[in-house]
Amino acid sequence: MQNQLIDGGVTAPKGFLAASTAAGIKKNGGKDMAMLYSTCTCRAAGTFTTNVVKAAPVLWDQELVSRQFGVQALVCNSGIANACTGAEGMDACRETALEAAQALKIPTDSVLVASTGVIGQPLPMDCIKTGIHQMADTLSDSREASRMAAQAIMTTDTVKKEAAVSIILGGKTVHIGGMCKGSGMIHPNMCTMLSFVTTDACISGELLQKALSLAVEDTYNMISVDGDTSTNDTVLLLSSGLAENPEITEENQDYQTFLEALLFVNETLAKSIAADGEGCTALFEVTVKGAAQKQQAAVLARSVVSSSLTKAALYGHDANWGRILCAMGYSGADFDPDQVDLFIESAAGKLQLTENGRALPYSEETATRILSEKTVTAVADLKQGNAHATAWGCDLTHKYVDINADYRS
Amino acid sequence: MQNQLIDGGVTAPKGFLAASTAAGIKKNGGKDMAMLYSTCTCRAAGTFTTNVVKAAPVLWDQELVSRQFGVQALVCNSGIANACTGAEGMDACRETALEAAQALKIPTDSVLVASTGVIGQPLPMDCIKTGIHQMADTLSDSREASRMAAQAIMTTDTVKKEAAVSIILGGKTVHIGGMCKGSGMIHPNMCTMLSFVTTDACISGELLQKALSLAVEDTYNMISVDGDTSTNDTVLLLSSGLAENPEITEENQDYQTFLEALLFVNETLAKSIAADGEGCTALFEVTVKGAAQKQQAAVLARSVVSSSLTKAALYGHDANWGRILCAMGYSGADFDPDQVDLFIESAAGKLQLTENGRALPYSEETATRILSEKTVTAVADLKQGNAHATAWGCDLTHKYVDINADYRS
Repeated sequence: MQNQLIDGGVTAPKGFLAASTAAGIKKNGGKDMAMLYSTCTCRAAGTFTTNVVKAAPVLWDQELVSRQFGVQALVCNSGIANACTGAEGMDACRETALEAAQALKIPTDSVLVASTGVIGQPLPMDCIKTGIHQMADTLSDSREASRMAAQAIMTTDTVKKEAAVSIILGGKTVHIGGMCKGSGMIHPNMCTMLSFVTTDACISGELLQKALSLAVEDTYNMISVDGDTSTNDTVLLLSSGLAENPEITEENQDYQTFLEALLFVNETLAKSIAADGEGCTALFEVTVKGAAQKQQAAVLARSVVSSSLTKAALYGHDANWGRILCAMGYSGADFDPDQVDLFIESAAGKLQLTENGRALPYSEETATRILSEKTVTAVADLKQGNAHATAWGCDLTHKYVDINADYRS
Repeated sequence: MQNQLIDGGVTAPKGFLAASTAAGIKKNGGKDMAMLYSTCTCRAAGTFTTNVVKAAPVLWDQELVSRQFGVQALVCNSGIANACTGAEGMDACRETALEAAQALKIPTDSVLVASTGVIGQPLPMDCIKTGIHQMADTLSDSREASRMAAQAIMTTDTVKKEAAVSIILGGKTVHIGGMCKGSGMIHPNMCTMLSFVTTDACISGELLQKALSLAVEDTYNMISVDGDTSTNDTVLLLSSGLAENPEITEENQDYQTFLEALLFVNETLAKSIAADGEGCTALFEVTVKGAAQKQQAAVLARSVVSSSLTKAALYGHDANWGRILCAMGYSGADFDPDQVDLFIESAAGKLQLTENGRALPYSEETATRILSEKTVTAVADLKQGNAHATAWGCDLTHKYVDINADYRS
């Protein structure tokens, strides 16, 4: 069954409310805090950065998710990452959760926290606390509330990122909705951004985590903007169970349907991050097919979307396909370069660049036209088997350098 | 003993002659071929790219070096990489070697070949052959000849790269001289460029290779410009033995003296590549010390010089030290972030940024002044042990994007 996006975000599933505010953390006065609240206790699943340097909120959420006592709220700030902040960083998480717990009348250890922004600075707790109360008073399940929350978690993002689907499970309508942020410090190996996904599906905590881990592998772990795996990467999935479908407790057809819908929502969100990569002008989609194993295809595809030289060539609309083969070559995955058929494709057409690893004659003009579209796909066929994987990235531009030469000022 | 550079390049050691020419391979009409010739048969050592996609000349040289029959000449072209060119690429190597062998009256399998430039295009063999004869007729051991050869192997390099030292072994003066090129597609894991080093030391083939492999590990494998490991990376070391020192056949004091001098020459060459990284404005030197193992220190140091975000911050003279800790964190090497003392240093001064992983107060003005120098060093002290390693990179600039968005035109 093909999933279709519906209008909506984190408040699309039953029981979820959102709020946001400008708490004075961002220097420009923009919205910088978001709150998510569930009318009932949720099961929670999470995946977190593999970076050895983990921000305090990552450690806080890992603990809460692993304890499985149920969560009911999430407080997120943008502007300051609360990373490399030591014991005071953990204190800031605890104080944030405590303040939200008091405002919402729920237990402190049912409050998840998340931060994104500059590393090494302390959170301004006065702003955070004031923001929490403002948000607690304005929680809403409206479309506008989820839109504003998605905007409030942005840093260098240029567009807010939301997605939602609805599916039928056991005769009941079930929703999955999500919002995420991420534009720089984006590189495979756990999510590389913040993503908060909600659902009203009734599903066991174990399968909720399993489905999320599988979905993350094929979505957030397959995007790269700049090769930098963040200290704060977090994906959280909360289920309220309010859809009242028969509880999913085994990997049956309902589980498959749920997993596919979850994959679809997360792929949509992950692609929106790659497409909004800092300074980028194009989404770069790389599919490696004909692989012997999926893992091999994934490593090769990720290596291509991560190559600075390939990304710069895409920015220049230059069909410098040698850089694609080169990036596959240093990926660490084995393959036979003399077997590779390489194609580029976009709304402007399709072109085969190599056959069995050798250049084919092609029109540079056609190639440039294909590479000038907003979404460009490269397909490498290894002709070894039936496994395939897709990774998403973006071009490397002057603006990326601008943004990151001067991020803090 | 501290080694000192002397004026000279590949013709500094006895027995080596060089030549160069503009053979019409580069569109701009610049010098694009170099030849190196030894008056006697040389022992040869080599290290080559780890990229699965290996250019034809890499395969050719690997074969010749492994056979240990002795080599006497090297022909290098810049402009076209002869990579992804299949069987015809290998034919081009054979034809090149054959033509040089005839012109120089030496065996075909004593001729090494090397190429650098655009991937996927065939070598223009007419130009190559004409160039070979022009060079064979103009070989010289003059300083000028080695200078011009170093210039002829450049692609996007902005300066030619040479180094030479002399040492005393068993009462005899021994020379080591080298030239290299490399500016983009530069990333640790074998050399990531072309480097040709000559010596008149008398040393067994086995120890020649051992010394080279050790030297490469600490020099060319510790530089990164853009994370792209090239298809053509090659380091060759030829020894003529004409210094007439007692042959080095075991790892004695003479071997140590030779190894240290070789390290020094290669470190000088490797740093000159990082300092000439495409579009860069500063050499970025990163030392990780206080490590439990050297390998751990090397992985951490390389991760920092490879981080796009850190490189962009350096370009902006922005002491965004969180990005340095972040890059250490995703390197794959283990360490305790809460122990790290971080310093930046240059001709303009020295500043401690963190103590035990936490921010110290510092003057942004001082930091900016330190980061505005031509060479900037970051030192991370893990406080775990006594091992250390240094890696070299450069900043990420608008010009890098310019160069690589439009390399082929």
